[in-house]
Amino acid sequence: MARVFNFSAGPAALPLPVLDQIKADLPEWLGTGMSVMELSHRSKEFIGVAEQAEADLRELMAIPDDYAVLFLQGGATQQFALLPANLAGPDQTVDYLVTGAWGKKAVKEAKALRATNVVADGGDSSYTDVPDPASWQCTPGAAYLHYTPNETIGGVEIHEPPAVSDAPLVADMSSTILSRPVDVSRFGVIYAGAQKNIGPAGLTIVIIRRDLLEREAQADLPRILSYAAHAEGGSMLNTPPTFAWYVAGLVFSWLKEQGGLVQMARTNQGKAERLYSAIDNSDFYANPVAVGYRSWMNVPFTLARPELDADFLAEAKAVGLTNLKGHRSVGGMRASIYNAVSDEAVDALLAFMKDFEAQRA
Amino acid sequence: MARVFNFSAGPAALPLPVLDQIKADLPEWLGTGMSVMELSHRSKEFIGVAEQAEADLRELMAIPDDYAVLFLQGGATQQFALLPANLAGPDQTVDYLVTGAWGKKAVKEAKALRATNVVADGGDSSYTDVPDPASWQCTPGAAYLHYTPNETIGGVEIHEPPAVSDAPLVADMSSTILSRPVDVSRFGVIYAGAQKNIGPAGLTIVIIRRDLLEREAQADLPRILSYAAHAEGGSMLNTPPTFAWYVAGLVFSWLKEQGGLVQMARTNQGKAERLYSAIDNSDFYANPVAVGYRSWMNVPFTLARPELDADFLAEAKAVGLTNLKGHRSVGGMRASIYNAVSDEAVDALLAFMKDFEAQRA
Repeated sequence: MARVFNFSAGPAALPLPVLDQIKADLPEWLGTGMSVMELSHRSKEFIGVAEQAEADLRELMAIPDDYAVLFLQGGATQQFALLPANLAGPDQTVDYLVTGAWGKKAVKEAKALRATNVVADGGDSSYTDVPDPASWQCTPGAAYLHYTPNETIGGVEIHEPPAVSDAPLVADMSSTILSRPVDVSRFGVIYAGAQKNIGPAGLTIVIIRRDLLEREAQADLPRILSYAAHAEGGSMLNTPPTFAWYVAGLVFSWLKEQGGLVQMARTNQGKAERLYSAIDNSDFYANPVAVGYRSWMNVPFTLARPELDADFLAEAKAVGLTNLKGHRSVGGMRASIYNAVSDEAVDALLAFMKDFEAQRA
Repeated sequence: MARVFNFSAGPAALPLPVLDQIKADLPEWLGTGMSVMELSHRSKEFIGVAEQAEADLRELMAIPDDYAVLFLQGGATQQFALLPANLAGPDQTVDYLVTGAWGKKAVKEAKALRATNVVADGGDSSYTDVPDPASWQCTPGAAYLHYTPNETIGGVEIHEPPAVSDAPLVADMSSTILSRPVDVSRFGVIYAGAQKNIGPAGLTIVIIRRDLLEREAQADLPRILSYAAHAEGGSMLNTPPTFAWYVAGLVFSWLKEQGGLVQMARTNQGKAERLYSAIDNSDFYANPVAVGYRSWMNVPFTLARPELDADFLAEAKAVGLTNLKGHRSVGGMRASIYNAVSDEAVDALLAFMKDFEAQRA
């Protein structure tokens, strides 16, 4: 069985050299006589893995020293509840920008805990555009402003952090983290589930400005739900997901070898532009997203004849192009082209799309 | 580098055939052209893995149909907070038996959320014995009675579920689950972090009687913290820790091949008895735990001359016996002899202990 080109939205493709390293490290890792899964998280060997991973992530993203980096569990969805609980007092308002399905889910969990104001909602455009920032209704003194820089399902990406509020900016970067350089100092919190651009599902990265760890709400939370407690405990309040942490470290190391995030941005932008250009230059394929907000990571597209969707997916799979089915809520196709999806994979997809169109259009 | 005998308390040894299978499944798994880490959790292939793992666990533990089995994140420590939040109303009392360090931690998190009554505390014996069940002060109408069947640090194990209260019994089985058959119907909730007898860290199993999912407290919780919501969502409210779930499935399959839990109990009891017998028949080694409550899984022991501790550990490591250092809170040594620690490993430890005593006593 050969490796396929995997366009899954997540859990998603990992770099082949990372998988090869995991394989080489089984069943004995680095002279320990055991696999990394069997190492105590308190062992000097695992502490070395953990610290190197954090150092590499800090280097890749140029994370300033006044930010803590947490390696947690629970996924971005758990953070939807933990963010308002940690960062806002019971009488404070939290602001949310909604540009798609994930932003809506974040609002739902926040509403259950705190007064929640939606500053703007892209629903009028069926989440194919982002409301003009001049129209956003931000709350003076809000505990934070939350947004979703990249909406994985709709393929809507806000390419620059918005500057419309004095409140700390909180960003769910699950599907865009590490795809390009970002100015971390513009954010209060950046968080991301691992299973797209970081590593295996079951690890969640939270990058948080240290002054936010002082917010009072955390004092009343169970320690295991408090960012401050996790930061104090070095993400080892309890046993962390050690294997996922190790794989994330391998991915960070691979990213450095690729030339870091400047090079990844160049590659990712190139991949996305080739794909959007092919779609735009065809009457057979279409992408509905406003050009300025098209995602570099998730490219949804439809066929002019939806009755051919099943054929498209089956024939793509037959030539080793998998997981191209769009999310059930929007239909059509979606190519997720994260860091580990190579130029070669995108070229293979483009060639297939051209052939399919030539045969069926 | 050869495999060592790993006596770590957790993350702990995994069966070598499981590690070999993981290795064989990289970088392509079962004709999918990708690793199991890269599979969508919604794919039919991963659903197959997930369902088989649950079915095998149900078979191994003979879990009745009126129990849900959840595959979650966060570790047992997160459950310390989620259990009172899910199972008790704000005005209800929760009962806890404390027989060691983990029970104490569970109480601490519960106290922050609900009125918490400690029915008995083994502190008077420095947690080397369990208070007589006749002396436990249970609360009539308590939301539940929580206990820790096996205390990993102290090596104190309660071998039969107590029958002293009408409240549902909630058991933190992190370090004893799957070591022997248990009558699941005696429990309201059984939960366990994976990293001892189940699989890699980052997965937590919760086995919960379905009527407890109806308890009202859950309605007010964020969905991601609610057992009822996880049960309703088939443990896929959000992306689950897919790789850890897959490895757990391999471990369950291995356990079935070993003859299931009846055979594991025989092996585990044998391993423990040989070790305790060697300790009791020596003036050089000692275990402080009351004989009726000695753990099958974690065997702490001390040397008559503590100044030899460092030599013991160094010489053991030199012959491939690793992670024998006792927890810092109790000192001395600890041999954790979970399911994946073989008869051969225990025999090698016994031979080493005998030699060391002969040379130094």
